[in-house]
Amino acid sequence: MPEHLGAPLIEPLFKRLAVIGVGLIGSSILRVARQQNLASALVAIDSTDVVCSRARALGLADYVTTDACEGVSGADLIIICTPVGAIGTVVAQIAPHLSGGALVSDVGSVKGAVVAVAQPHLPPSVHFVPAHPVAGTEYSGPDAGFSTLFLHRWCILTPPDGTNPSAVDAMRAFWVGAGSNVEVMTPAHHDLVLAITSHVPHLIAYNIVGTAADLEEVTQSEVIKFSAGGFRDFTRIAASDPTMWRDIFLHNREAVLEMLGRFNEDLAALQRMIRWGDGQGLHDLFTRTRAIRRSIIAQGQETPAADFGRHGDLGGKDPD
Amino acid sequence: MPEHLGAPLIEPLFKRLAVIGVGLIGSSILRVARQQNLASALVAIDSTDVVCSRARALGLADYVTTDACEGVSGADLIIICTPVGAIGTVVAQIAPHLSGGALVSDVGSVKGAVVAVAQPHLPPSVHFVPAHPVAGTEYSGPDAGFSTLFLHRWCILTPPDGTNPSAVDAMRAFWVGAGSNVEVMTPAHHDLVLAITSHVPHLIAYNIVGTAADLEEVTQSEVIKFSAGGFRDFTRIAASDPTMWRDIFLHNREAVLEMLGRFNEDLAALQRMIRWGDGQGLHDLFTRTRAIRRSIIAQGQETPAADFGRHGDLGGKDPD
Repeated sequence: MPEHLGAPLIEPLFKRLAVIGVGLIGSSILRVARQQNLASALVAIDSTDVVCSRARALGLADYVTTDACEGVSGADLIIICTPVGAIGTVVAQIAPHLSGGALVSDVGSVKGAVVAVAQPHLPPSVHFVPAHPVAGTEYSGPDAGFSTLFLHRWCILTPPDGTNPSAVDAMRAFWVGAGSNVEVMTPAHHDLVLAITSHVPHLIAYNIVGTAADLEEVTQSEVIKFSAGGFRDFTRIAASDPTMWRDIFLHNREAVLEMLGRFNEDLAALQRMIRWGDGQGLHDLFTRTRAIRRSIIAQGQETPAADFGRHGDLGGKDPD
Repeated sequence: MPEHLGAPLIEPLFKRLAVIGVGLIGSSILRVARQQNLASALVAIDSTDVVCSRARALGLADYVTTDACEGVSGADLIIICTPVGAIGTVVAQIAPHLSGGALVSDVGSVKGAVVAVAQPHLPPSVHFVPAHPVAGTEYSGPDAGFSTLFLHRWCILTPPDGTNPSAVDAMRAFWVGAGSNVEVMTPAHHDLVLAITSHVPHLIAYNIVGTAADLEEVTQSEVIKFSAGGFRDFTRIAASDPTMWRDIFLHNREAVLEMLGRFNEDLAALQRMIRWGDGQGLHDLFTRTRAIRRSIIAQGQETPAADFGRHGDLGGKDPD
């Protein structure tokens, strides 16, 4: 039952939105901002010429430039959509060129480290409301974005202590306009929540795909042929952008190591159940985990279709 | 680009097919056998009255019974579709009632243990060709099946030493008729291949869902809301049938523990890279894993659609 973005706003929320980093997320923000009339003018900024050319060809913005300092001038909303590791440098670079009263945000998947590197550079005349839209696909680049990427997904805002509440409200209005649900929490709590709901899942997906690739008893060709047994599910998130994910692990180290420790403890217990033939223990866990998926589906965060609904795409036809 | 099963056979391959255990796989076999005319008569056998009632209501077979001994009499193909742990008992029970020359098979996800428990019971007058169709969804029961479940998926045959080659050919013809690609290997190699492509992936999916459910710093509600960050991908296979998966781990213990050992070694190395900030090592792995997904897609075992194509089902619309 696909739903659509509602009617566009009659009055835009911002005069001039500058998006820095025009990849999957940045280009999706530009698309939804255009479609929903979230800002009067759109500026796309990317350090790479080839990305700027694509942004122009796709008509993503009114103005496209490689020069971040020029691009942010006159903007009342600036959203930094680079990998987390580049945010500090970008903020330092644009800070002197920001207009007084401007709202600066980002979309990084780590928030504590971003606040720590960005805040010292920002003049007191601008507002800083870091954000993390929990949405994405395994594809990257300006062609991969689409305007409904954020629809019904959650966007987490992590304003530092002392942020002007009206700046938080303005940022919330933007993400609601993009179709998202919005929640506010501290950067530290965000980093813990995302470590378990996103970062450790990506880590173990990357890891098992790597393990499977390195075996000598089982060929690569066998891994590929028989991947429908479960393995292929992991390859989707293990195909995500390598630079983005390197930066996430380097910048959310403590929370990731903490959650990975829990994962490892539980896996050791499970390994022991298998070694000692504890069928009841296995059955109990496998029953408990079913309920979580039901809740995720009930709350509209997952498709109820069998096998993610992908049967039709793989040379199968719809269930009869 | 959905494809369909081809035209039904003009001459059925078997006279009477008896399927024991009418769940996702058993009911899908009955559906495709009917649709493609793979057998003249279909018998559905299930120990549970309620499943037999559903099988009758769905019109899955010409004859439905809870009595396996009666159900297999006169059948020239018997496929056991119970959980792996029940196969030995079923074979012991039906063995005296099998017709001479009958072909006996199963669909268990473990093959070494199945051959070990089943073969001693079977009279020399019947042929035994164990099979494993590498296909499924996270749903269970007779209503969950569909006739294209096996289309373009691989089915692995593991005939014990000395099996009559014509019996293997007959079994291959059946699975080709169901739309599958067929490969033959030893039970031991099957169990190693599936340990890495299916069993360990399920184990770590069950494990992370369990870990996330048990945290005290992050609420269940937060795990559900923010699951689109990657976690929800794991919940699909962690929602698979608990009894089926308990039996798989109990019966493929050695190969699972071996592959889990590799996974743990690699994860420890990755954990160390994060602790020591080895960005290059992380980036190298994350780049390598991308290529595997591309191969799986190129070989028709996975959808190229972003996010498994599920955006349209979640209250989003198709990418613009």
